[in-house]
Amino acid sequence: MRQSQLFTKTRREAPSDEVAKNAQLLIRAGYIHKEMAGVYSFLPLGLRVLNKIVQVIREEMNRIGGQEMLMTALQDKEIWMRTDRWDDKKVDIWFKTNISNGGETGLGFSHEEPLTRILLDHVSSYRDLPIYPYQFQTKFRNEMRAKSGIMRGREFLMKDLYSFSKNEEEHNEFYAHAREAYKKVFERLGLGDRTYVTFASGGVFSEFSEEFQTVSDAGEDIIYIDEEKKIAVNKEVYTDATLEKLGLEKSKLKETKSIEVGNIFSLGSRFSDALGLSYTDQEGTQQPVLMGCYGIGPSRVMGTIVEALADDKGIVWPESVAPFRVHLVSLVPDDVTTAYADALYEDFVREGVEVLYDDRDARAGEKLADSDLLGIPTRLLIGKETIETGKVEVVDRKTGEVKRIARGEITDLFA
Amino acid sequence: MRQSQLFTKTRREAPSDEVAKNAQLLIRAGYIHKEMAGVYSFLPLGLRVLNKIVQVIREEMNRIGGQEMLMTALQDKEIWMRTDRWDDKKVDIWFKTNISNGGETGLGFSHEEPLTRILLDHVSSYRDLPIYPYQFQTKFRNEMRAKSGIMRGREFLMKDLYSFSKNEEEHNEFYAHAREAYKKVFERLGLGDRTYVTFASGGVFSEFSEEFQTVSDAGEDIIYIDEEKKIAVNKEVYTDATLEKLGLEKSKLKETKSIEVGNIFSLGSRFSDALGLSYTDQEGTQQPVLMGCYGIGPSRVMGTIVEALADDKGIVWPESVAPFRVHLVSLVPDDVTTAYADALYEDFVREGVEVLYDDRDARAGEKLADSDLLGIPTRLLIGKETIETGKVEVVDRKTGEVKRIARGEITDLFA
Repeated sequence: MRQSQLFTKTRREAPSDEVAKNAQLLIRAGYIHKEMAGVYSFLPLGLRVLNKIVQVIREEMNRIGGQEMLMTALQDKEIWMRTDRWDDKKVDIWFKTNISNGGETGLGFSHEEPLTRILLDHVSSYRDLPIYPYQFQTKFRNEMRAKSGIMRGREFLMKDLYSFSKNEEEHNEFYAHAREAYKKVFERLGLGDRTYVTFASGGVFSEFSEEFQTVSDAGEDIIYIDEEKKIAVNKEVYTDATLEKLGLEKSKLKETKSIEVGNIFSLGSRFSDALGLSYTDQEGTQQPVLMGCYGIGPSRVMGTIVEALADDKGIVWPESVAPFRVHLVSLVPDDVTTAYADALYEDFVREGVEVLYDDRDARAGEKLADSDLLGIPTRLLIGKETIETGKVEVVDRKTGEVKRIARGEITDLFA
Repeated sequence: MRQSQLFTKTRREAPSDEVAKNAQLLIRAGYIHKEMAGVYSFLPLGLRVLNKIVQVIREEMNRIGGQEMLMTALQDKEIWMRTDRWDDKKVDIWFKTNISNGGETGLGFSHEEPLTRILLDHVSSYRDLPIYPYQFQTKFRNEMRAKSGIMRGREFLMKDLYSFSKNEEEHNEFYAHAREAYKKVFERLGLGDRTYVTFASGGVFSEFSEEFQTVSDAGEDIIYIDEEKKIAVNKEVYTDATLEKLGLEKSKLKETKSIEVGNIFSLGSRFSDALGLSYTDQEGTQQPVLMGCYGIGPSRVMGTIVEALADDKGIVWPESVAPFRVHLVSLVPDDVTTAYADALYEDFVREGVEVLYDDRDARAGEKLADSDLLGIPTRLLIGKETIETGKVEVVDRKTGEVKRIARGEITDLFA
């Protein structure tokens, strides 16, 4: 796309009330807009990144048998009362509102209740299980504090997958698959080397849940990492008993701040019992359905990538989520340079390479600063030297490495 | 996909409280689930249809210069007060709720206000215009009555595009492009022959708005159609003066019920003035920005397609939005037939043809009834005859036409 046609602009300063680095950079670069505390719109470049994160997660969820669906924000009070999660004393993050012809509704902060009820219509026999429905859906949480940019929003996108299994063995097998799928997701999203499976508090049905924690100073969690085993323990369960159970030695652990980017959790039959979801086994006996939930917030992941990988010049996107693969920057506004850059742009478009083409009538310095801020992985500079030597300057945004590549070999680089 | 793995099932009866045909059929076929009046979840098959509708609209919006973004549900009261649309006496469909650390927010029923404010950061000069941002976003409308299934929801998906132009001429040019794009959308969605550009009430800045009305007994609108000119007039502006202005003759018009599937509307500078969005022209003078809005509800369109095209056996999807292109149905549960159907299924998967394969252990009659209900455009039947003659029965869901096609030519049909 031609940058002159993009309706967003970069800006020098973030809004003064924005304290989170991720939001400051994303706002300055024109990826997002702050509507209110904890509520952000995604502008065209930001939506491209968000959609790429979604697509990576979708592929990995489909690979382990996930079936995508889409539930609603508006929630039926009645089913939440049955699981005792309607009362504000039990769940303190509800947004509640009135229905015009009577009754009250709330905005979903999670979806165990509605999904379990949906499955009453579709699950009755052992033949119907196991199943793994999931969705990418907007969640609402009425947080008291919302100061972490898009990492902790009052409204945010969430991938929530739920497993429904016949027994412990089947549940545990899928739970292990989900853990591996999550590792793959964070690797593909460029966070693999700094993201740890972290033991955290569980519930009635399992001693621990597992969080995926990404090391970052912007994190709100404290974890203790065993680098060798590549696992960690959340401060909330950091006791001698836990360490012994997990076979970890206190002396080998490193304390650090981190951001929770995902979690997987065994729910047992808490929700299926409360809402009456059971199945008939091969002997004709009614059995409880065992559930698990598996969450990743794509918008939170986007914020985390910014926090973890940005440098002092701006955002640094991994290739897998960058809004464009290539930033083509024309530095000189004369006809020869413009024709050269135009032709290269057309080549990329024809080859299906995602390219943002800075064809704006602006100073070279401004274009370079904007390009750093935007964080597209590879920058191609078309300037006087290109015309003279026939070579294009190729800059790696992350390392700063510069190569001069002959025109004829450029598109091959991205084939 | 193998139907045995799909987690939804068909059912004989719709819920007794569901009065709309579209929702009755979509629930029975397992496309949607009713959460509450006017609030529906999309199950895997339903989400596939919805996404295809979205993609058709997206392609046509991109073709006329649309740039996709994504705004939020939670709305900042302050900007809606400035346009005088916060007061429940002015807008009676708000869902409003409280923010935990103080203040009130509402769930967006439309997005003129937040988008106009966003553009204060990005538009200042004539060089920045025209622009056409759009989104697919969940809207909330606290309707008193919600009895039309997914055609009038309290929570529903909406494509809303907004145009921002420098002057009348530029605005009118885009408005005409949008009209043509909308015609193309409804043609591609299989509703072209029964959808009419319909003149309806306008506002301060234009005498008429234009609705796209699809003829259907399930409609809530009354329109008067001129078949020759392929345009219509909404009852709300059906006066002698309107007919004269539009050059229509009363005697040639046919009254009918219809469903509003889209609309385009000139807003003038109502919102840009109220929120202070203007631009500097080439002479350095501040000028008002002229706006238009252009809506299509993909979920409403989905309901309309069901209402308009279904027959007494079930849903009939046009190819462009069907959840799968082919429904492969194995009628006999023996090894030979199963192996034959399995092989054909694998061929389709390899060729990238979207296929639902009914490999369930169920009676042939049940499978055929389900297939009719599901409404996939082409059905392939694998039975005794197939094994004997080497020919597959190919049934057109819409016309009922049956062909017998040699195995070797089957995949070519869908190439």
